Amino acid sequence: MNPPLRLLVIGGVAAGASCAARARRLDEHASIIMLDRGPDVSFANCGLPYHIGGEIAERGALAVQTPAGLKSLLNLDVRTGCEALRIDRAGKRVEVRQVADGHCEWISYDKLMLAPGASPLRPALPGIDDARVHTLRNLQDMDRILAAAGTARRAVVIGAGFIGIEMAEQLRHRGLAVQLVELQEQVLPQLDAPMSALLASELQRQGVTVMTGERVTAFEPADAVLHCRLASGRVLEADLVILSIGVQPETTLAREAGLALGPRGHILVDEFMRTSDPDIHAAGDAVLTRDRIDGSAVSVPLGGPANRQGRVAADCMLLGDRARPYPGSLGTAIVRAFDVVAGITGWSEKRLLAAGKAHDSITVNAEHHAGYYPGAKPMSLKILWEPDTGRLLGAQATGFEGVDKRLDVLATALAGGMTVDDLCHLELAYAPPFGSAKDIVNLAGFAACNKRDGLVTPAASLPADANVQVLDVRPKALAEAFPVPGGAINIPFPALRASLDRLDPRRPVVTVCAFGKMSYFAARILAQQGFEVRSFAGGMRGNVDPRSPGKMPG
Amino acid sequence: MNPPLRLLVIGGVAAGASCAARARRLDEHASIIMLDRGPDVSFANCGLPYHIGGEIAERGALAVQTPAGLKSLLNLDVRTGCEALRIDRAGKRVEVRQVADGHCEWISYDKLMLAPGASPLRPALPGIDDARVHTLRNLQDMDRILAAAGTARRAVVIGAGFIGIEMAEQLRHRGLAVQLVELQEQVLPQLDAPMSALLASELQRQGVTVMTGERVTAFEPADAVLHCRLASGRVLEADLVILSIGVQPETTLAREAGLALGPRGHILVDEFMRTSDPDIHAAGDAVLTRDRIDGSAVSVPLGGPANRQGRVAADCMLLGDRARPYPGSLGTAIVRAFDVVAGITGWSEKRLLAAGKAHDSITVNAEHHAGYYPGAKPMSLKILWEPDTGRLLGAQATGFEGVDKRLDVLATALAGGMTVDDLCHLELAYAPPFGSAKDIVNLAGFAACNKRDGLVTPAASLPADANVQVLDVRPKALAEAFPVPGGAINIPFPALRASLDRLDPRRPVVTVCAFGKMSYFAARILAQQGFEVRSFAGGMRGNVDPRSPGKMPG
Repeated sequence: MNPPLRLLVIGGVAAGASCAARARRLDEHASIIMLDRGPDVSFANCGLPYHIGGEIAERGALAVQTPAGLKSLLNLDVRTGCEALRIDRAGKRVEVRQVADGHCEWISYDKLMLAPGASPLRPALPGIDDARVHTLRNLQDMDRILAAAGTARRAVVIGAGFIGIEMAEQLRHRGLAVQLVELQEQVLPQLDAPMSALLASELQRQGVTVMTGERVTAFEPADAVLHCRLASGRVLEADLVILSIGVQPETTLAREAGLALGPRGHILVDEFMRTSDPDIHAAGDAVLTRDRIDGSAVSVPLGGPANRQGRVAADCMLLGDRARPYPGSLGTAIVRAFDVVAGITGWSEKRLLAAGKAHDSITVNAEHHAGYYPGAKPMSLKILWEPDTGRLLGAQATGFEGVDKRLDVLATALAGGMTVDDLCHLELAYAPPFGSAKDIVNLAGFAACNKRDGLVTPAASLPADANVQVLDVRPKALAEAFPVPGGAINIPFPALRASLDRLDPRRPVVTVCAFGKMSYFAARILAQQGFEVRSFAGGMRGNVDPRSPGKMPG
Repeated sequence: MNPPLRLLVIGGVAAGASCAARARRLDEHASIIMLDRGPDVSFANCGLPYHIGGEIAERGALAVQTPAGLKSLLNLDVRTGCEALRIDRAGKRVEVRQVADGHCEWISYDKLMLAPGASPLRPALPGIDDARVHTLRNLQDMDRILAAAGTARRAVVIGAGFIGIEMAEQLRHRGLAVQLVELQEQVLPQLDAPMSALLASELQRQGVTVMTGERVTAFEPADAVLHCRLASGRVLEADLVILSIGVQPETTLAREAGLALGPRGHILVDEFMRTSDPDIHAAGDAVLTRDRIDGSAVSVPLGGPANRQGRVAADCMLLGDRARPYPGSLGTAIVRAFDVVAGITGWSEKRLLAAGKAHDSITVNAEHHAGYYPGAKPMSLKILWEPDTGRLLGAQATGFEGVDKRLDVLATALAGGMTVDDLCHLELAYAPPFGSAKDIVNLAGFAACNKRDGLVTPAASLPADANVQVLDVRPKALAEAFPVPGGAINIPFPALRASLDRLDPRRPVVTVCAFGKMSYFAARILAQQGFEVRSFAGGMRGNVDPRSPGKMPG
């Protein structure tokens, strides 16, 4: 019998803990040591904001496992408060220091797993070290923020990505005045701007002051308050600052060991999570993984991929030929702010544009379940695809209910290499409380195919050219209450066929309605009457509160 | 310019109305006549039960479109109260009778669309024509049931499929005593029996008397009440009977026209919804379509497929080479009964067994979102796959929240021809309110791969053989409160590694826990210690109320 495998895991949260747990299932006899620099392992880092806001009442709920629990469940030798100082690759050992007493020792390994994670960015701004400037990575950060929030009245959250938005929401729940500062011109800059607009308006409706296109330049203590100075000259007063502008991989150990790193310091791994040293695996926020759409190297610091990568690493170590590769990451992500939800899977249009990749896109609006069943809420879905093949490249959704479901369907379709044609015929679970006979995902497929087949030419924006006739087909009352900027000819849709003489057939037309559906119908009529016509795909919904009761007139 | 196309559509609900609407978008100049025998077109037939129960307060909400509305929106010539009597295929015309006055006329067509639907089965039982025995297909049926329910106290619902369960729920909402009678030995017989058990217990908890394995033989008026006589000898008293035992296609017209029909009278169509006459299309509940899993001919009388088939038919008539085929149906379906939801996509195990198709299956149990976030509810997911390839064949889910989402993900994976390996790495939208870093869909993939890779051998049932050691690894209190039927050795999981001497290594072991997770862990330990071991996949959850607060001990 071979001597038992010695597995050393550095980092005990998502990727590390998943690797150790899977390794134990695969090898009851292995010696598995899991180190973490901090006092906790396997805690619920995605839950931290929700304890700060009070939604998760018990701190203990976030400590999913303890070292003693992992010993008893998985026979793991968990050592918290232990920092890995250096890797001796030739000797296959790691020098480890106990944080408490500085005691150092070497731990030998047959296989080494690196799951060091990523730390929040803290740029070298004046005043950044003020104790009121917090980042959120672990339970201790959370405890500090909670302690500060006890007396704080004004919070400034810097960075309106996923964590920043969650923190803004949760600090509002605690009753703080919250100012949310974002460098980009939109909140949730991972999404295309129109898809984050509902989120921004919801944040503002709930009392969060949203400032986009603003950069923090310094933190200045002033009496009992901290001034956050912005590049625009504005100064925000804060008792508490949350810095959530991104993360950087913690890969000093890997670099010093000579492992191959990416341009921004991430550990390079193959599809079995092997580093450039075949006895050292790595996974989670610290690695570059493959993008599932185009195979390029990407960093996707998210919990889901980290967990599954850790599992793949264990499989590679212990299952041999039966191990299956990690297929890459899509970057599926979702956030809730109060009543609004938004998320993305795959590539955004801005990312496709920046990469110069050919793409086409469409945005559709519909209700999240049958309109005749009570409680139907509007939602918006944007899909992107490869023009030549119809293959999906990405999707974004926003609304109130059912956003997660549509993102999951699209993430599955992306993983399956499916096309816009496939979306037309997805047979999703339909009963009135759950969906529609033609779900918004089907509608997105229909709209994409209509565009591809030349049945409609969408207009992404209202025309600037005065020669273009803007035709508003909404009911008169709606057209007057929320007029099209720049003016329009209002012919309510039911009257259109009988009123074509009000349009000049020699001049192009852009059709406009509330949601982009009736304008499509109108464009079909005009196109077949010989007009050069485009349909304003987004509709005028941005000018209408989606919470208004009843069905939105078309 | 060609003369305008004359399209005649018979049947104005899902498939017919979709066909007519799509045809109008594709051809503004076509003459489109849509007939329906009844007084309504394009009504929300899936919503009927919910108006009976009062959830949909306004009857008008179900009349999605009126003939006048369809004229104004789509320039359709809608003729309600018109029955098609016969098709003169050679003359390309249909004889139509006005129900009101018996007036007959011939209507010519270039293309004919048949969307006659299916009518509820009414077997020739004694007393079946009693006015208290209702079926539910249209608004008039609904009105009659509503009128009867006003004074009724006792309802008998015959057939516990999707409609029967919805009707049982809605009649309970109205305060009636409801008895639900099902021929099969389980409610929702479309599912495998274990996956419908939660639904049955919820129906009973909410006061519905559920009787399975019972057949109605006669209806007998007795004073003011109707007696429903069952084959078992029981007699149920009813003021109101709902018969929901299935449907049959309404294809007399097609048969008499000599169109090719299937063995049970459905119209045969190709993938463009063309009948055996190339100028006659058909779609919806009356046709045989292709099964998306194996390509066999199936009847799938559901609203989603009907709508999309109608659209494909219009595309075939009007888009020529650009039309794309209907890819077949999965039979995705879902039902809610009070707090519980259950559904299916693709094939069930019983259907695979009946067809003699090789398959493998696994059932996993998990919470619908992160367990540490408040409100996590248990759910159960069963998947079936082809052993050779890992290709998915079907899935069933039941629980309280998020069942529809997982069915939609699996329906998408089925449509994409994806495998159990693909499920492992679906990157679903994760934030604590929405899911888990390892979603139950991922867990199902893991479990399937573990089974395929020989890491675990599931036991579908508890062993009958006394030589087999049943090992219950739940905590002592739980093992005592809900003992394993037939007895078991209780070694709580944390003590297992130190207590292996309590098991006889020469005798096989079946491990048992609450949800099937800890029993898998235990089986891994025993297998690697040389035991012949299987894990009881279902767990003991059937003996524990899933509504008990907090996390279920493993």
